[in-house]
Amino acid sequence: MKLIINNPPPYGGKLIKNIDKKEHELKGVPFYDIKPEIDKKSGAPIRNVYREIISICYGFFSPLDRFMTREDVDFVLNQRRLPNGYIFPLPIIFDVDKDEIKKMQLREGDRLYLRLKGKPFAYIEVEEMWEFNPEEIAVKTFGTPEKNSDALKKPLDEKHPGFSIYRNMSGFAIAGKVYIINEPKFKEPYNRFWYPPEMSREEFSRRNWRTVIAHQTRNVPHTGHEHLMKEAAFMGDIEPCRGILVNAIVGAKRIGDFVDEAILEGHEAVNKYGYIKPERHMVTFTLWDMRYGAPLESLLHGIIRQNMGCTHHMFGRDHAAAGDYFDPYSTQTLWTKGLPSYGFDAPPYDVEKGLEIRPVNVQEFFYCPRCNEITYSETCGHNEAQRFSGSFVRGLIAEGIKPPSVIFRPEVYDVIVKWWRVFGYPFVNKRYLMQKEEELEVEVE
Amino acid sequence: MKLIINNPPPYGGKLIKNIDKKEHELKGVPFYDIKPEIDKKSGAPIRNVYREIISICYGFFSPLDRFMTREDVDFVLNQRRLPNGYIFPLPIIFDVDKDEIKKMQLREGDRLYLRLKGKPFAYIEVEEMWEFNPEEIAVKTFGTPEKNSDALKKPLDEKHPGFSIYRNMSGFAIAGKVYIINEPKFKEPYNRFWYPPEMSREEFSRRNWRTVIAHQTRNVPHTGHEHLMKEAAFMGDIEPCRGILVNAIVGAKRIGDFVDEAILEGHEAVNKYGYIKPERHMVTFTLWDMRYGAPLESLLHGIIRQNMGCTHHMFGRDHAAAGDYFDPYSTQTLWTKGLPSYGFDAPPYDVEKGLEIRPVNVQEFFYCPRCNEITYSETCGHNEAQRFSGSFVRGLIAEGIKPPSVIFRPEVYDVIVKWWRVFGYPFVNKRYLMQKEEELEVEVE
Repeated sequence: MKLIINNPPPYGGKLIKNIDKKEHELKGVPFYDIKPEIDKKSGAPIRNVYREIISICYGFFSPLDRFMTREDVDFVLNQRRLPNGYIFPLPIIFDVDKDEIKKMQLREGDRLYLRLKGKPFAYIEVEEMWEFNPEEIAVKTFGTPEKNSDALKKPLDEKHPGFSIYRNMSGFAIAGKVYIINEPKFKEPYNRFWYPPEMSREEFSRRNWRTVIAHQTRNVPHTGHEHLMKEAAFMGDIEPCRGILVNAIVGAKRIGDFVDEAILEGHEAVNKYGYIKPERHMVTFTLWDMRYGAPLESLLHGIIRQNMGCTHHMFGRDHAAAGDYFDPYSTQTLWTKGLPSYGFDAPPYDVEKGLEIRPVNVQEFFYCPRCNEITYSETCGHNEAQRFSGSFVRGLIAEGIKPPSVIFRPEVYDVIVKWWRVFGYPFVNKRYLMQKEEELEVEVE
Repeated sequence: MKLIINNPPPYGGKLIKNIDKKEHELKGVPFYDIKPEIDKKSGAPIRNVYREIISICYGFFSPLDRFMTREDVDFVLNQRRLPNGYIFPLPIIFDVDKDEIKKMQLREGDRLYLRLKGKPFAYIEVEEMWEFNPEEIAVKTFGTPEKNSDALKKPLDEKHPGFSIYRNMSGFAIAGKVYIINEPKFKEPYNRFWYPPEMSREEFSRRNWRTVIAHQTRNVPHTGHEHLMKEAAFMGDIEPCRGILVNAIVGAKRIGDFVDEAILEGHEAVNKYGYIKPERHMVTFTLWDMRYGAPLESLLHGIIRQNMGCTHHMFGRDHAAAGDYFDPYSTQTLWTKGLPSYGFDAPPYDVEKGLEIRPVNVQEFFYCPRCNEITYSETCGHNEAQRFSGSFVRGLIAEGIKPPSVIFRPEVYDVIVKWWRVFGYPFVNKRYLMQKEEELEVEVE
C-alpha cells in the first residue's frame, strides 16, 4: 500500500505557456481592442476576456491553449470534455464585434492582434470564425432541471451571473490559439499574489510542499473560513497537507461583494498575523469571471489548482454557486460519485483522463458557545450552532460595527477598513464596478 | 485514481476467536492458577497474563492465536514477524512456575486448564515447554542503542516498565493455542466499553463508519487530546473519517497514572456532553499490559486497531513511550519511512504482508492566547504556545484546583472527581495498584 502523495503533473501532462515575446512587426497592423462585456439590461460590466487570455496563456486552464472552435464547444457541451478527451466544463469563447471584424477582412489562418487598454497585448491565430445563438449556448452550458435533475433545481435565467455572461455574448466568435506578446504588470496589491502555475510549482518545490490543499475564495475570511482551511488541511497522506493554497478568483464583481483587494490582503493577514504560519499558507489568485456553475465551476477549479500543483481541493456546501439554481450538494455529489447528467458516471478523479486532484468534501463550520470555539457540524453535538451568516457579517460591517473577534480576526477586519477608506465603501458598489473594469488589475506598458 | 477507503480486513485475513464453550469435563483436572506478575524489586504487580489470553482469544492480536514457541519468539526478535510472515513486534510469552508445572507432569500435546480468580477460565494446548533467559529476552525485545540507533537513545533498564515485564518473567514458558472456556463478565464501568474486534466491526457497520480513525490513550482527555481527535479525524479519503475510535489500553498501572475507570468515562464524557457527537465517537478498550515499546508498541497498536476495523491511526510525538529511551520521533519515522534496525526498510503499510491501517502522523496541539483557542504546532505562527504539561495538570488536580475550561472540559473533570471519591485519590496509588491486580476488571462466574 503506497500512501505518499506528490504534487500531480499539470492536467494533460504539460503546462501551457503561450507567451511569445519575439519582436513583432506591429506597424500598420490592424488591432482589435479588448473591451469589457456589458450586461445589456443593467449596463454593468460582467466580464473581460483579457482575464481568459491571461489564464489560458499562463497555463491555468491547461491543456486548453486556445479559444474554442464550434467543435470544441460542442464537445464541451455534450461531454464536458475537449476533443482530446480531457475534461473541460465550460465554453471558453472569444466573442467579438462582427462588424468590426468584417471591416478588417479577417480570414481563417490570419493572425489577429489584440490591444488591452490601448496597448499591444496578445494575438490569436484565427482557426475559425463562427456564429452562435447566445441564448442557446447559455442554456446548454448549465443545462436544465429536466436534463440535469441530479444537479439543477430550476432553470437558469438572466439573474444568474454566469448565464448572463453567455447570454450577453455577441454571437460571433473567433477561435484559435492565443499568445501574449506583452506581459501586463499587476498593480498593487495584486502583484505579490501573482503565482501562475509555473511559479506556484516552483514555490511549492522551494517550500517542500509535497502536499498542498487548495482553498477557493471570493471572500474576506472570517474565522469559519480560517477553520475550514486549518481543519481541511489535516487531510493529506500520512501527515496533514504541508501547504494551504488560497486561490482567489479575481474578476468581474457583483454589487455587495467584498472588493478583490480586501479579499487578497484579508487572506494574507491570516498568515501575516500568525493564525496560520506563513510557511504553511500562501495567497494567490486566478483571473476569471466566475460562471457560478457550482459542480461545473468546481471542475474548472480542480483543473486550475491541479495545474498550480495542488494535491487536494476543499469543496464545501454550495461551492461556487449563486442563487438557488443548483442543489447545494451537487458539487460534493460530483466529487463523491459523479453526476451522470453532465457525463460523469464516476467522480472526476476516477474516470479516463481524469483529474489528479483529490476532493476534501466538508460540511459546515460554526461557532458553538458550549464548545466555546469554532467547530464542525460533523463534530459538535450541541445544538447551539451560531452559523456564519454572510449577510449578518456584511450588515455589521456596513454599520461600522467591528465584528467580535471570535468571528472575525481584528487584523483581517483592519484590512477591510483600509480598503473601505480607499474606495469609500466596504463593499463593491456601482462606482467600484465601473472603475475596476476600466482600470483592470493590470498596467500594460 | 480510486480514493474511497473501506474498513480493512482483519490482519492476516481472519479474526481469531478462540472461545470454546463446549462442555468441559473438569472434575479432577489439574488447574494452573493465573497470578499477577510481581516486580521483584518493588513488589508491585506489573502484568497479568489473563489480559493477553483475553486479547488473543477475542482476536485483538490476530493472526496470533497462541502463546509463542521458542521459534515464534526467535522470529519476532529477529524479524518482528511471526513464522507465517505477518508482522508482530513483541514476544507474547506465557511464563509459568516451573516447579508447579513439573509437579503436574505436564507433557507436550496435553491440555492445561487455567483458573482465574479461582474459577475455570481457559486452556492452553501445550505445544512446547521451553526455558529462556529473561534478561536476554528483555534486551532483545527492545534492542540496544548500538543495534537500533535509528530508534533507541539509551539502553533499557529496570526503570522501564516494559523491560521489567520481560525481565521479571520466570524463565519457563508454555507455548500453544489458547482458548477461553468461560467468558468473564466485565465490571462497571468497563462492560459498556467492551467491543472486541468482531463487535467493533459490527458496530462500525451499523453506524456506517466506512472510515474510522483510532486514538490510542492512557489519559483522561484534556482539550489538547480532544483537538487531536477532532483535527486528526479530518484525514479520511474524500471526506473526513466518519468515526473516531478511542481505544484505551487497560492494564497494569503505574503510580501517578490516571485510573482506568476515569480514563474510559472521561473519554465518554467528551461525546456524552457533545464536544464530539456520540454518533461519531466511541470509547472502547483493549486489555494489555503496556510494554512502552514506542515504535514497537505502535505496530501492536496498528494490528489491534486494524483488527477492530479502523482505517487510520493517530501517531503523535513520543507514542507509547516511557522515559527517554526512545527517540521521540521513532514511531513517526517507522510510519513514514520505516526503521531498518527493526527489519522495516519501508513503513509497515508498504512491506510484504504489511498492515492495512494508515498512519496520521501529527505534531503538537497547544493553547495559543493570540489565536484564543487550541491550535496546532504546524498551523499557529505565534510564539506564545501554552503547552499541555501532564505534570502541571496533574499537579493542579492533586491540589484540588479545577483546571480552566480551556484546558479541561468541566464534565471531564467531574469524572475525575467521581473516581477520586471512590478511590480516595485522583491518581493511581499503591492501594489502587494492589487492589486492581487482585480484583481485575472482570468477574468470573
